[in-house]
Amino acid sequence: MALSFEVGAASQSGGRRGALHLPHGAVQTPFFMPVGTAATVKAVPQETLEQIGADSAGAEMVLANTYHLTLRPGHELIRRMGGLHRFMSWPRPMLTDSGGFQVFSLAKLRKVTDEGVEFRSHLDGSQHFFSPEHSMEVQIALGADVMMAFDECVETPATWQRTRDSMGLTHAWAKRSKDYFETHKDEVPWTKLEGRHSERSSESQYLGLPQNLDSRTQSLFGIVQGGMYPDLRRESAERLAEMEFDGYAIGGLAVGEPPEVTREIIARTLELLPRDRPRYVMGVGYPDQIAEYARMGVDMMDCVLPTRAARHGLLFRTPEPGERQSVEDAIGEEESGFDRPGESWIGENRADPAAIRMNIKRVEYAEDQRPIDPACACPVCRRYTRAYLRHLFMAREPLGATLNSIHNLAFYLDIMERVRGELVQV
Amino acid sequence: MALSFEVGAASQSGGRRGALHLPHGAVQTPFFMPVGTAATVKAVPQETLEQIGADSAGAEMVLANTYHLTLRPGHELIRRMGGLHRFMSWPRPMLTDSGGFQVFSLAKLRKVTDEGVEFRSHLDGSQHFFSPEHSMEVQIALGADVMMAFDECVETPATWQRTRDSMGLTHAWAKRSKDYFETHKDEVPWTKLEGRHSERSSESQYLGLPQNLDSRTQSLFGIVQGGMYPDLRRESAERLAEMEFDGYAIGGLAVGEPPEVTREIIARTLELLPRDRPRYVMGVGYPDQIAEYARMGVDMMDCVLPTRAARHGLLFRTPEPGERQSVEDAIGEEESGFDRPGESWIGENRADPAAIRMNIKRVEYAEDQRPIDPACACPVCRRYTRAYLRHLFMAREPLGATLNSIHNLAFYLDIMERVRGELVQV
Repeated sequence: MALSFEVGAASQSGGRRGALHLPHGAVQTPFFMPVGTAATVKAVPQETLEQIGADSAGAEMVLANTYHLTLRPGHELIRRMGGLHRFMSWPRPMLTDSGGFQVFSLAKLRKVTDEGVEFRSHLDGSQHFFSPEHSMEVQIALGADVMMAFDECVETPATWQRTRDSMGLTHAWAKRSKDYFETHKDEVPWTKLEGRHSERSSESQYLGLPQNLDSRTQSLFGIVQGGMYPDLRRESAERLAEMEFDGYAIGGLAVGEPPEVTREIIARTLELLPRDRPRYVMGVGYPDQIAEYARMGVDMMDCVLPTRAARHGLLFRTPEPGERQSVEDAIGEEESGFDRPGESWIGENRADPAAIRMNIKRVEYAEDQRPIDPACACPVCRRYTRAYLRHLFMAREPLGATLNSIHNLAFYLDIMERVRGELVQV
Repeated sequence: MALSFEVGAASQSGGRRGALHLPHGAVQTPFFMPVGTAATVKAVPQETLEQIGADSAGAEMVLANTYHLTLRPGHELIRRMGGLHRFMSWPRPMLTDSGGFQVFSLAKLRKVTDEGVEFRSHLDGSQHFFSPEHSMEVQIALGADVMMAFDECVETPATWQRTRDSMGLTHAWAKRSKDYFETHKDEVPWTKLEGRHSERSSESQYLGLPQNLDSRTQSLFGIVQGGMYPDLRRESAERLAEMEFDGYAIGGLAVGEPPEVTREIIARTLELLPRDRPRYVMGVGYPDQIAEYARMGVDMMDCVLPTRAARHGLLFRTPEPGERQSVEDAIGEEESGFDRPGESWIGENRADPAAIRMNIKRVEYAEDQRPIDPACACPVCRRYTRAYLRHLFMAREPLGATLNSIHNLAFYLDIMERVRGELVQV
């Protein structure tokens, strides 16, 4: 068996609490996954990731990017190392994306055919080819607990016809992904490690061995596409549900559309997905968004935002009673290299926001001896002041990126813990 | 009282074991200080620094650079923040250098007069002036447990006459440093924090408050100069001893001279320094050197080498029985940005070296599942493989610099722990 998912009844808002059981452990849902693009959540040691957040529970699951890892160090190398868990010494559950989104957003000179995508690496211009079968082969070599079907990501905005054609390709690729996965899932590199389990049991947690021996194969999720067209989203959800995936993602969102549209598409699509399966929205979002989507019934999310923002000095903190986001404090976000600058103003003037954003480089923090967030219990807020973090940022000291990332991730994990707490009371 | 130093009898080789009691705690001697140039040991969180090394004792004392901190964020700011301990949340002992070495090695357009040194910042070209009095004022504002007298660092090689003239200036500046310090030492910012001690006692360790209430003033060390001339070294040691400093440093070494000369100057100078005071060699060295100098009777050392090497992928490990440094594995060290490339070959073909250097970027480590050093118990060697560290380095992931730095520092601290163990058995 791949995964098992225990899920409670939906609250009035649609949110539900549950537990996702995977080969490398159980994860409380709904949850947020930090992004570990190149087999590392940038600037944060694994032992820290295991400890941050509410009750020091740490991040229960992280995501890694198939596109980046296949280019460097290469999935064959990671397979020989026993898979990604063992390679990066992360004993807990992981998810890999299909590589599709990065092929369409990062790679050069793409050529899409029914067969797959030919592209050149953004690192060295070398030529590569991704098909559904190849994405599966790579993701099996990486050995994450959850893999994603290979999909086409359509440019945005796109016409109804263009979106429908692309969705058709995504469905054909989803079927091919599933067929390949079903016949090759025993090739996951964990099985090669089994003999070593008893020998070196004390080290087993760092060897990337499955903790849960009853569910030791990977799981495959399908990805609903259909752009901003409700009729296409419905068709996509129905087609994928017929294929019976282990879980379902809602893809192609947060690509520049207004946040109200994102929310609307999520709400409508959730209604169409099987209720007994985990539902995952990829690549979101700001604190207000992840809380809102979780309350609507999304079980899983991931985003580079907390770590990327951290490296640019953008920190999240708990609002004071009645406080709203000030425009001044958000100045400079556009320079911060976000993929989706339009989103950076979400929450502006919103009442009761989940977070206030602060730009640590602002001079008003130069002698501010408070922690980033007095309401936060993360290791950074317990120990360091805004004044010190501003100094590290201004001096371009690497410790700044590390401490800022730890805080922002802890802030995100805490939000999800609070939302889970609300849901259990329903 | 500033410091107290308990020191045992010298071993046959001259080494001695002791304990240095400072306002922020006691330090077992001989010891090595990691360098925290800009109020951070680059890429390593303070909570990690507190735990690495033998028995998880951590680094007991770190050094910060006066020159860098006065330029950014400025010593007045740090004074207002309560001093460096509190600013960077480092509750243990610290030492600040005088700024002299960096003024002479980093700053632009220096002009030296009897009064002091005028120079331009390497950061922004702004004009600054350092005199002995100003260095003391800055170091008192920073509030480290140990401060250093302001000295001139002569270029190398230098003639006997040039070296003697410079030494004369260093002696005059040492006297002025001490005079200023004696009349201003009550200005250390800790005293301003005293009222808050009882109020927030649970936080006191992070507030930079002195732990040892019987010794709450800073200490001032003199710096012996005299270049490579034994007669001048003798004169310098005698003149400084007459001034009665709390401890004595041997400066102007490891600036490009052959290692045998460094060793010889240290050996001769140690004989001339008061035996009941701590003796400090600044800016050294490789693992073999720190072990050797400690066995000769040096009590304190500091060096950027373990952390700078780490950021360039150069790692230290325990030799296997009979192993010598291979030339191949050291290839690339010259590109690594060391100040003193001549030194990087120390230990070549030496029997029983204290360490083997490995260049983690070498392809032979790409699939090496061993830890950096199987004999090392640091958190990095307990968890991560060479293959993973090589991947992080090749992908320029910031976690690589962090993990490499943690290991190299732990390796250095372990060496000192072993030397202390040898000395106690004498």
